[in-house]
Amino acid sequence: MYVILIYDIKTDEKSPRIHRNIFKICKKYLTNVQKSVFEGELSRAEELKLKMELKPFIRKDKDSIVIFKSRSNKWLDKEFWAMEDDKTSNII
Amino acid sequence: MYVILIYDIKTDEKSPRIHRNIFKICKKYLTNVQKSVFEGELSRAEELKLKMELKPFIRKDKDSIVIFKSRSNKWLDKEFWAMEDDKTSNII
Repeated sequence: MYVILIYDIKTDEKSPRIHRNIFKICKKYLTNVQKSVFEGELSRAEELKLKMELKPFIRKDKDSIVIFKSRSNKWLDKEFWAMEDDKTSNII
Repeated sequence: MYVILIYDIKTDEKSPRIHRNIFKICKKYLTNVQKSVFEGELSRAEELKLKMELKPFIRKDKDSIVIFKSRSNKWLDKEFWAMEDDKTSNII
């Protein structure tokens, strides 16, 4: 399945460290599109592993992760309306 | 078409005002899912109008907007892995 993952970390004294940890974990599984936006192909097993790795860092009352899942990226087009991050803008 | 819009505004003295303006414009067309994440159904004409309205506020060298487009939301599932924003978590 094709996944778009977006996280939002509440800004406080702990957030820079949390942000770094979450970014590092996501980078192992997905491609970074924008500051806190990742995308890529994930198997069901990889999705569960990613979820388990992220869990210890997410403060349920403060932080948020939203995942959009599609069976394949062929139904997804991607566009940049400003600063282009060319690493991944070639989805058809 | 179904759209997921995510913006990233570079933090500086101007960013709070830019963030407010962009948020207000996006809210006219789409549903807010997470701090700088919007989703919803857009016609081609609405997409162009939204793009034109946002353009004056986006600093090309600093800020970024990425749009994921799908012909319909029936190929998209959405999940929250932490703080749930229940306004829109009912996409099938």
